[in-house]
Amino acid sequence: MSGLPGSASTALFTDRYELTMVAAALADGTAHRPCAFEVFARRLPDGRRYGVVAGTRRLIDAIADFRFGDTELEMLADVVDPAALDWLAGYRFSGDVDGYPEGELFFPGSPILSVTGTFADAVMLETLALSILNHDSAVAAAAARMVSAAADRPIIEMGGRRTHEEAAVAAARATYLAGFAATSNLEAGRRYGIPTTGTAAHAFVLLHDDELSAFRSQIASLGEKTTLLVDTYDIRKGVENAIEAGGTGLGSIRIDSGDLGVMAQQAREQLDALGATGTRIVLSGDLDEYAIASLRAEPVDSYGVGTSVVTGSGAPTAGLVYKLVEVDGRPVAKRSTSKESRGGRKSAVRRHKPTGTAVEEVVHPWAAPPVVGPHDRVVPVPMMRGGEPVPDLETLEQGRERLRAALVSVPWEGLKLSRGEPAVPTVFTAAPGGS
Amino acid sequence: MSGLPGSASTALFTDRYELTMVAAALADGTAHRPCAFEVFARRLPDGRRYGVVAGTRRLIDAIADFRFGDTELEMLADVVDPAALDWLAGYRFSGDVDGYPEGELFFPGSPILSVTGTFADAVMLETLALSILNHDSAVAAAAARMVSAAADRPIIEMGGRRTHEEAAVAAARATYLAGFAATSNLEAGRRYGIPTTGTAAHAFVLLHDDELSAFRSQIASLGEKTTLLVDTYDIRKGVENAIEAGGTGLGSIRIDSGDLGVMAQQAREQLDALGATGTRIVLSGDLDEYAIASLRAEPVDSYGVGTSVVTGSGAPTAGLVYKLVEVDGRPVAKRSTSKESRGGRKSAVRRHKPTGTAVEEVVHPWAAPPVVGPHDRVVPVPMMRGGEPVPDLETLEQGRERLRAALVSVPWEGLKLSRGEPAVPTVFTAAPGGS
Repeated sequence: MSGLPGSASTALFTDRYELTMVAAALADGTAHRPCAFEVFARRLPDGRRYGVVAGTRRLIDAIADFRFGDTELEMLADVVDPAALDWLAGYRFSGDVDGYPEGELFFPGSPILSVTGTFADAVMLETLALSILNHDSAVAAAAARMVSAAADRPIIEMGGRRTHEEAAVAAARATYLAGFAATSNLEAGRRYGIPTTGTAAHAFVLLHDDELSAFRSQIASLGEKTTLLVDTYDIRKGVENAIEAGGTGLGSIRIDSGDLGVMAQQAREQLDALGATGTRIVLSGDLDEYAIASLRAEPVDSYGVGTSVVTGSGAPTAGLVYKLVEVDGRPVAKRSTSKESRGGRKSAVRRHKPTGTAVEEVVHPWAAPPVVGPHDRVVPVPMMRGGEPVPDLETLEQGRERLRAALVSVPWEGLKLSRGEPAVPTVFTAAPGGS
Repeated sequence: MSGLPGSASTALFTDRYELTMVAAALADGTAHRPCAFEVFARRLPDGRRYGVVAGTRRLIDAIADFRFGDTELEMLADVVDPAALDWLAGYRFSGDVDGYPEGELFFPGSPILSVTGTFADAVMLETLALSILNHDSAVAAAAARMVSAAADRPIIEMGGRRTHEEAAVAAARATYLAGFAATSNLEAGRRYGIPTTGTAAHAFVLLHDDELSAFRSQIASLGEKTTLLVDTYDIRKGVENAIEAGGTGLGSIRIDSGDLGVMAQQAREQLDALGATGTRIVLSGDLDEYAIASLRAEPVDSYGVGTSVVTGSGAPTAGLVYKLVEVDGRPVAKRSTSKESRGGRKSAVRRHKPTGTAVEEVVHPWAAPPVVGPHDRVVPVPMMRGGEPVPDLETLEQGRERLRAALVSVPWEGLKLSRGEPAVPTVFTAAPGGS
């Protein structure tokens, strides 16, 4: 195990204070008190109506790799005392994790992850858990809105160049979870089995002596079902060249600039007139959920989305926090000027109408569940027990299907792109006889 | 070499179309045409007055690791034909890279990176180059504005939990480049030698039977120069407990919530009254450059900044693009409806007044430099030659000093936080006798 970029250890994706807190707690004897931490959002990003849980599966894997090897310990010799260093050398998480599975919706206050174990066990996972969940959930929420806006037209993720190179891989995964059809990112294909796809860049056309030569070369190499990029010089001429090179069986053309709706209409007419009635039109170029929605009436077959989805379309982080809620079975909570949270470990039940429409999220003390009716559902599921992942953790495909179904359950006004209240109200219940 | 997360290879941080373009160009014979690609921003993020180059050093290292090993090639067997696969197996970048060094300012159209080599050599680096530069430069630009706003008060980066776990490490690096004093991120400390620091979380106070016990434990473990977090319950009582535990020699207190300006004033008065005149006040909690500027008159000693800086404070990506500008010595450029770019490989000279104030950025054809006066400076520097990094690449500390100096050279209105034009205008010159 090494700490190099490329190491399997995730233990230094951690804020320094977590380890100094552990050192102090080891010294004063509180480190082994049983605790529960909870991940939740105080609010949704401005105007959003739902959040989407993403990254939990990546987190479970990362927790398994949260070990301090020689490289990590060497760096920490200046951070904590020798006794704490010894303890870290033997550390592996041995607690339990429960949470909302990937693809589940969440609302303000939803207990989307609960980590139980000793203080020392659980406090160290704060940064790792939040980094993964905040990033992946922000991307998934933006992607889900785009999928809704696109209705049944497929969307391809192609934003890797607009975000950190490793974040790009996780972003591709989150967009696929949210219903995107494919990604341009090869590492996401390799690591997660997500379908990869691609067209060509303007550079390929510019490299060649003329556009027609470039198109002929691409067809020769990739076959007539490829996608030709037609807006390097003149779109009308580009479409003409595309069909000359690819024939009326050409797979697709892509338009990446200009007034996309108008361009799509003109290209469709031109393609049809040329007899290429089956050739599809792919649009890209600064698309977000609003632009996609505005293109609903246009003859578009699929979208390529980059910047907006990998940056969470205005909300690049999901606002999730990791808070200590229980010590020795006693609820605890910060209670100064603002940022209060609700003490006590919690779970949640989502209630639905008989039609399947979600009507409320009941967040309740872990030990005091409400009656779960025939149309209701307990949301959190077990994820780790005694530091080991539970068998049969959900796959990415299962999470994808879960989100698809969850979005169907949202009241129709909850799917609007416009600003508004959370799609499903959250109700907090108290423990019998107390807060 | 493997392609696992943790592999040393960066070759799959790549969009699929780059490899399919290479395959087609290898087949048609254009792959070996000498080309120049350029990285630039068409515009700065809305209202920003300058960009900050960051990530070039990370990029140079990543280019050295851009190799296709067995794991990568296995994945690519479905993507390109066997001839291309063979070529990829032997690939290593063998071209040249020149560019703006880290910490340099940039403006719309500044040629911040130029990559020359064969088409196949250079086109494949597009996604990797843009991912690194777009992310790191976005964070550095936001951080530089915060450093300006904080004047001489140090800022600590603590936003790792709000962004992807690897992006967090790069973000810490970019904020340090921009003048932040330290980071909470341990991996950034290990990987880049950035000073790490930290205080404690509310969880540490909540873990203990009372606040005073928590403070005493922290002092016992970390010494009286530590920073105590005083806003878990009641700030006034927290300050009292802090001095009771740490004495009047206590290093710092941190306030993370509430009306920070008012809280800082009250805490300062209280600390002084208790005799702790040397105890510093650290503020954190949703700070951005505007909040920091608004606290200038308050008795604050340092700031902790999280979410806003790692997400680029409203501009999470720097808007950099990677465009083919020259083929076989001939300028090329897209020229359809929008997104035009200027053909031809370019360099830049920054002109200054004798006082050192920057007055304009002259972007000129590479082979037609303007007269460089005694107060002017050629901005790009050599970074790679024949695929090898040049000796004596700048260190992170040198980039940090470069930015510090560059910000001093900006006309004063260019440092305003308010929306406005680029701080330094860019002038584009043509080659003698033509565009």
